[in-house]
Amino acid sequence: MGVVVNLDHGREDAITHLTSLVRAELDATNRVIVLRMQSPVELIPRLAAHLVQAGGKRLRPLLTLASAKLCGHEGGRAVNLAACVEFIHTATLLHDDVVDESQLRRGLASANAVFGNKASVLVGDFLFSRAFELMVEDGSIAVLAILSRASATISEGEVLQLVTANDTGSSEEQYLEVIRCKTAALFAAACRIGAVVADRPRAEERALEAFGLNLGIAFQLADDVLDYAASQVLLGKTVGDDFREGKITLPVLLAFRRGDAAERAFWKRVMETPEAQTEADLPEAMALLEKHGALRDTIARARHYGDIARDALRIFPDCAIRRALDGAIAYAFERTR
Amino acid sequence: MGVVVNLDHGREDAITHLTSLVRAELDATNRVIVLRMQSPVELIPRLAAHLVQAGGKRLRPLLTLASAKLCGHEGGRAVNLAACVEFIHTATLLHDDVVDESQLRRGLASANAVFGNKASVLVGDFLFSRAFELMVEDGSIAVLAILSRASATISEGEVLQLVTANDTGSSEEQYLEVIRCKTAALFAAACRIGAVVADRPRAEERALEAFGLNLGIAFQLADDVLDYAASQVLLGKTVGDDFREGKITLPVLLAFRRGDAAERAFWKRVMETPEAQTEADLPEAMALLEKHGALRDTIARARHYGDIARDALRIFPDCAIRRALDGAIAYAFERTR
Repeated sequence: MGVVVNLDHGREDAITHLTSLVRAELDATNRVIVLRMQSPVELIPRLAAHLVQAGGKRLRPLLTLASAKLCGHEGGRAVNLAACVEFIHTATLLHDDVVDESQLRRGLASANAVFGNKASVLVGDFLFSRAFELMVEDGSIAVLAILSRASATISEGEVLQLVTANDTGSSEEQYLEVIRCKTAALFAAACRIGAVVADRPRAEERALEAFGLNLGIAFQLADDVLDYAASQVLLGKTVGDDFREGKITLPVLLAFRRGDAAERAFWKRVMETPEAQTEADLPEAMALLEKHGALRDTIARARHYGDIARDALRIFPDCAIRRALDGAIAYAFERTR
Repeated sequence: MGVVVNLDHGREDAITHLTSLVRAELDATNRVIVLRMQSPVELIPRLAAHLVQAGGKRLRPLLTLASAKLCGHEGGRAVNLAACVEFIHTATLLHDDVVDESQLRRGLASANAVFGNKASVLVGDFLFSRAFELMVEDGSIAVLAILSRASATISEGEVLQLVTANDTGSSEEQYLEVIRCKTAALFAAACRIGAVVADRPRAEERALEAFGLNLGIAFQLADDVLDYAASQVLLGKTVGDDFREGKITLPVLLAFRRGDAAERAFWKRVMETPEAQTEADLPEAMALLEKHGALRDTIARARHYGDIARDALRIFPDCAIRRALDGAIAYAFERTR
């Protein structure tokens, strides 16, 4: 394989390092998260905790906190809004897992597998509403506008993915639109509100929004590669999840376009009727991805967005936080090397 | 049967009459609804239209518009916020139907039956986000606080219903808490924001909130009765839906408590393992409800809340709108007579 999982923990330090720069704020955000997912209906905190405490890197709240710090913000508003961003993200994960019928999430049984689809739908709704309650407490209409727009965009992206998911005829453009909406919009909003709470000029708001948007696209493209290249144990993901769902990601689009008639027929069969896949299909798909350099070139596409993200940050003075955010971009690809 | 469906169209005029008093505003709200459920992702307006255009009485937006008018509000804010309320309601219906696995909604195939559960979950999320976008455009933090709180309360009520649904041991108090959250909270919020947009004193806000809350409880109790008393064709509901899902509503709670050991064993069997019900079970259940006056007494309970709702309105001067709102209370019970 041209693409293997990076086991060098030194490289993973980019996120750890960024985290260390906003450690106190992130700890405070985690306390807000635990406090505000409480409800007299005890299944709600229990189910929410299953997902929230499963950990993950808290990447989105981390981006809000780091963006706010880059803008010189020192108050508690970023802490609370970082919790909002994580609640919105967690709500979409809960609904995603129901839609995808996923059995695993970050290496643990997914919430829908443990608590059922019904509870996952409803607790997702609760977390979403709670996120808006937290924003209302913050009191900024500008923040509410950014995050309500991002939320609507996420659902539009999810629906678009649903209708194009098994269609090998969908274009790279359509695919980019899906990930721009379903993943990158929240990254963009998370970063942008850092500038809003710091009351910085619109140019800095736009710069952080562009940074987040392009970082989000890069991350999603790298994730799509990882679905074919990573081991389940290391990443807490089921390898080939996207493949088994017939989810058409950029690696598949590239291999499909570059393939001959027989290969295209293969992709059509496995993507359009994923429930009829056989055990030999995933290895065959991986061989075709390798043959056409589809994973390598998806990473090249991701790198393009990473470059834009890096340049967007250049209007901020060189400092520890900016360098750490640069590092976060590099991390997106290093996971895949 | 002591309780039969009312076929006298004269009685149904209460809602028609209330509607006629805010006809122009409701038409404007309907235009906002159609306009703002648009999305470049064409499945979204298509699915939303399936539900929105299925009609229904637009009861919640009607309450917002009528409450605003009662408070002397003349502007367009109530029109937009009435659309928000309907979007939140529609989003919860979409998720409800997924959770309940309903096949019918207002006499038509439910959205999940036509478009699938996945699309229903995601379009529900979209409508919910869009509601918040509309509120942000309105710009009132007070309104955002009221409707974000109501939304969180609705999900708490839905989860509470999920965990108590098939438990014959649940109490009347628990049941009231469920319907207070899942149904009455949005009625209360819909009415209260009428006073907020009119910038009326807190006493009027509280009066309209109390009116809405108690009206909502009365409506839900009446609906629970209708599930055992109405014909599918007339109401666009499947008769015995609640029964077949093992959903424990107040009529069942009353019959269970008043029944002997054999009857309780019957209720336990049909409610706790609804999938094992036989064809004879629904008629048997209806006979037991009749024997113990369970439907009649549920209506008596509903009437109690209706009385509170009526008194809450008494701080407003007697006028056409107040009398029409009184009529809406009466309508809740007249449907069941």
